[in-house]
Amino acid sequence: MCPHALIPFKLVNPKTRLSCILNQEERESFARAMLEDVIRAVKDANCSPVIVSTELFDSEDIQVTVKDADLNQTLNSILPQSVGEIMIIMADLPLADAQSIRRVISTKNDIALVPGRGGGTNVIFIKEPQRYHVEYYGTSFLKHVKIAEDAGLSCEVIDSYRLHTDIDEKEDLAELLIHGTGKSRAYLEDLGFVLSVEKGRVGVGRKGA
Amino acid sequence: MCPHALIPFKLVNPKTRLSCILNQEERESFARAMLEDVIRAVKDANCSPVIVSTELFDSEDIQVTVKDADLNQTLNSILPQSVGEIMIIMADLPLADAQSIRRVISTKNDIALVPGRGGGTNVIFIKEPQRYHVEYYGTSFLKHVKIAEDAGLSCEVIDSYRLHTDIDEKEDLAELLIHGTGKSRAYLEDLGFVLSVEKGRVGVGRKGA
Repeated sequence: MCPHALIPFKLVNPKTRLSCILNQEERESFARAMLEDVIRAVKDANCSPVIVSTELFDSEDIQVTVKDADLNQTLNSILPQSVGEIMIIMADLPLADAQSIRRVISTKNDIALVPGRGGGTNVIFIKEPQRYHVEYYGTSFLKHVKIAEDAGLSCEVIDSYRLHTDIDEKEDLAELLIHGTGKSRAYLEDLGFVLSVEKGRVGVGRKGA
Repeated sequence: MCPHALIPFKLVNPKTRLSCILNQEERESFARAMLEDVIRAVKDANCSPVIVSTELFDSEDIQVTVKDADLNQTLNSILPQSVGEIMIIMADLPLADAQSIRRVISTKNDIALVPGRGGGTNVIFIKEPQRYHVEYYGTSFLKHVKIAEDAGLSCEVIDSYRLHTDIDEKEDLAELLIHGTGKSRAYLEDLGFVLSVEKGRVGVGRKGA
């Protein structure tokens, strides 16, 4: 058993909410480093990464290149054709590790979901992909729970902060500097990012900035 | 085996970072509702709640009333006198449930820690309280890992978003409206709080406000 792990990935101008602290080239390198951390975790959990992107890029991993950038359309065209279990995991989860992913894929239910911060869905694991469809954006977590219910599929919610923590905004970088161990943390440190504590609140600063 | 769960609690003017959206009376009621949710989860996991507060208040649960409001001093005076296992759990974790707490207290290590968002420490479980001390504030999670190391105590980090999600700021209320099931969620709804989605981001709004 070696489930495919679909990883949607935006190569060009990703993570625009980090523009206040990273320029476009840095955001592209950072997003790529986070992707590599996710791929590492996926492989460590004995899953096969499949990168779903609008552009082909240098990587030894399997890639699906799609014309259409719409995430839902893309994934909902892949799911009905899939054979065997499928995981969909976001590329901005650099705290993901083999242990947390194993908890997802070892569910006894039909579906496992991991919510992201703010109502998003960071990971979906589907035993019978033909019976499910996705609906990302907004409070997608609640939508994904309901889609499972409507399809008569049992659903487990996996309680993991490592998979809950998506990196979108400046404050999120603190989580990576505290809990990260991979390439994306190293990349931030190379850029001069350090933890800072002001008035009891933990944030990040950039040396020389 | 029925570990005591120390729950530090501030009765008067708590959660000041929610002042933008809740007045003092509402914040006090909300903090009390969150405390009750935590106590419910603690009891469901077969632990005995012990509320640690500067003021006595109406509750059927065991209370320790302390003169000194300093959290570290207070807890570090209690730990050496404790017999048996001790859990310290924050009162602002309304997503806590029996399952997540059971994962904490069933650790095979000497200590279990659950990090909070922003480097805090939301739960500490200590098998031999005489051998440990706490150091809250700032990036206390990293300090608590080091205190365990320095004392030669093995430490497990529990990967739980339910215990990771402390409610401090307005954006955190969305987590409670999405994932909460207890009294504090009901209290927010009674006040007219609803989820709102603007430009793809999920937040909260208050009807009539």
